[in-house]
Amino acid sequence: MAKKLFIPGPVEVHPDILQAMATPMVGHRMAEYATLHGRVTTGLKKLLATEAKVFLSTSSAFGAMEGAVRNLVAGRCVNFCNGAFSDKWHDVTRRCGKEADAVKVEWGKPITAELVDEALATGKYDSLTLIHNETSTGVMSPLPEIAAVLRKYPDVVSIIDTVSSMSALPIPVDELGIDCCIFGVQKAFALPPGLAVFTASEKALARARTVEGRGYYFDFLEFEASDAKNNTPSTPCISLIYAMDKQLERMFAEGFEQRWARHRALADFVRGWVSDRGYGFFAEEAYRSMTLTCAVNSRGTDLASLKKMLGERGFAFDDGYGKIKGKTFRIPHMGDMQRSDLEEFLAVIDECLAVLG
Amino acid sequence: MAKKLFIPGPVEVHPDILQAMATPMVGHRMAEYATLHGRVTTGLKKLLATEAKVFLSTSSAFGAMEGAVRNLVAGRCVNFCNGAFSDKWHDVTRRCGKEADAVKVEWGKPITAELVDEALATGKYDSLTLIHNETSTGVMSPLPEIAAVLRKYPDVVSIIDTVSSMSALPIPVDELGIDCCIFGVQKAFALPPGLAVFTASEKALARARTVEGRGYYFDFLEFEASDAKNNTPSTPCISLIYAMDKQLERMFAEGFEQRWARHRALADFVRGWVSDRGYGFFAEEAYRSMTLTCAVNSRGTDLASLKKMLGERGFAFDDGYGKIKGKTFRIPHMGDMQRSDLEEFLAVIDECLAVLG
Repeated sequence: MAKKLFIPGPVEVHPDILQAMATPMVGHRMAEYATLHGRVTTGLKKLLATEAKVFLSTSSAFGAMEGAVRNLVAGRCVNFCNGAFSDKWHDVTRRCGKEADAVKVEWGKPITAELVDEALATGKYDSLTLIHNETSTGVMSPLPEIAAVLRKYPDVVSIIDTVSSMSALPIPVDELGIDCCIFGVQKAFALPPGLAVFTASEKALARARTVEGRGYYFDFLEFEASDAKNNTPSTPCISLIYAMDKQLERMFAEGFEQRWARHRALADFVRGWVSDRGYGFFAEEAYRSMTLTCAVNSRGTDLASLKKMLGERGFAFDDGYGKIKGKTFRIPHMGDMQRSDLEEFLAVIDECLAVLG
Repeated sequence: MAKKLFIPGPVEVHPDILQAMATPMVGHRMAEYATLHGRVTTGLKKLLATEAKVFLSTSSAFGAMEGAVRNLVAGRCVNFCNGAFSDKWHDVTRRCGKEADAVKVEWGKPITAELVDEALATGKYDSLTLIHNETSTGVMSPLPEIAAVLRKYPDVVSIIDTVSSMSALPIPVDELGIDCCIFGVQKAFALPPGLAVFTASEKALARARTVEGRGYYFDFLEFEASDAKNNTPSTPCISLIYAMDKQLERMFAEGFEQRWARHRALADFVRGWVSDRGYGFFAEEAYRSMTLTCAVNSRGTDLASLKKMLGERGFAFDDGYGKIKGKTFRIPHMGDMQRSDLEEFLAVIDECLAVLG
């Protein structure tokens, strides 16, 4: 029996999307593919509020995240780190042979505008990486305030991952001045994994043109050349692009404002449950994620047993990530999730907690 | 209306496989995924007749092909080139910052054992790349003879792409001494695109351990570490792994010998039609591909018009690749194709040719 997923990605996929995955193939050099590709990137540009290029990468998000540092770091990069995935991005940047420093804050804390300003004021960096919504800790850093700081440093290329936030709240890429906005599709977008999306501003593309060793598979200039023909440099994951096409259609039908409002309401609902049950929050109030709540296990619940019990009842539960596993647990409220889904899940958790004590 | 694909990839996908793509998601860090992953890699090891590691890469084949040179070229590489894709692999090798020479033969010619021997005898190379079945030209190079030569050079790591041949004829990876055998899934495997498979022998892994700058996304040692847990370093394209699981089940049900025999029979059938209609062959008889026939347009057929007419009748046709477009055309006979599919397609071509004259 398939478990219903209440983990922060991959998330549960709507039956209409699953069925879109079963669409018969087209050839990626046929006109039919170019039409599909153009429709999807046009829809994504609306959602992201950008006139920059939007590229489709047949990879997980970390492929595009590695690609971004290969293409956009010419001199020295600063990686802002406040959780497992941003920590890893620093490691990956260095493995690409790039000079990079990590600005690390304690897990659970946000990356603030002040931190960004302080690092960039040194004048040492031509690029930065930042994860908007750290999926490991449920912390959302304040993008609009950070964006205000970025305007002071026009020569710095900003690379920002929004894998677990894009589409759940407004992230207007051009207005925020994000040069390269990256996300995978199996979290806030609620598709099966295997596709990453990234934008490239004119500034980013100009930078890439100066950088050696971009390789081929993630070469931004190859993506740019193929994009002109509504195509990709390598054979794309067509089934997932069908799924993205269907999901964009669904997002337009729901309406962006309504989608954002639904996420706010779901976040409030889950936070209320967490408080009512006597758990804490790993993030400070102002920086709590809109798409997942990371609760502190302040009741000392036996999370391993809870996970097992929930699994037996058909629900996949997440008992924390990395070094905070067991000390925290994470409840996602993203993608196509509805209030009724969370009501069902939280009611079953309540039943289990009654048994566990 | 979806066209029935008679292009050499992506190929037509069986309805059972398409339906497998619509399977509800699991989390890739859940036990359910590890079970699936283990079953798929075990099945692949049987098909490839290898005890080496078999890794699943969320990328097209060129991602894994780039990864292989990043990981396995320590000193200097020789790229054997006899078509569009092998030519490109040489370019990609150099873009990865590797020292590499191309041994180029005319398009339509095979890479022979003699050529390989001559290059390796110089002692300049620690690695080689070779495409077994050049999809652009319909030429299949003689792997068993090349393998006999490779045994003379035990320090050379062999990287061989079998994207359009694997599963259509026996390619026993260990017996042939292939250190890294790579293929995408949208050609001979008849899955939708977006997944690549590659093997890594002990020698390949030992080499990777000595090479700097492997990056992260295609780092063989990361794949090795994750494989020990039946997992992948980055979020995998789970839907395609479901599809691979179903396809391996179908291949085992058909039987490998039967699958090979079917491909031989289909190749004979198509070659007979090509001869009978007065077209030539781009490859010499001994090196004609088992999975696609590249015909020379010796009748001077208006291939653009033929392609258009076939499209109107619901069939996607290929009128040659790259610099031999229009001078050749390619008929695939790979994947799950049956004799009746080709009979239908070739009959419609005959109808069109009668109109075109």
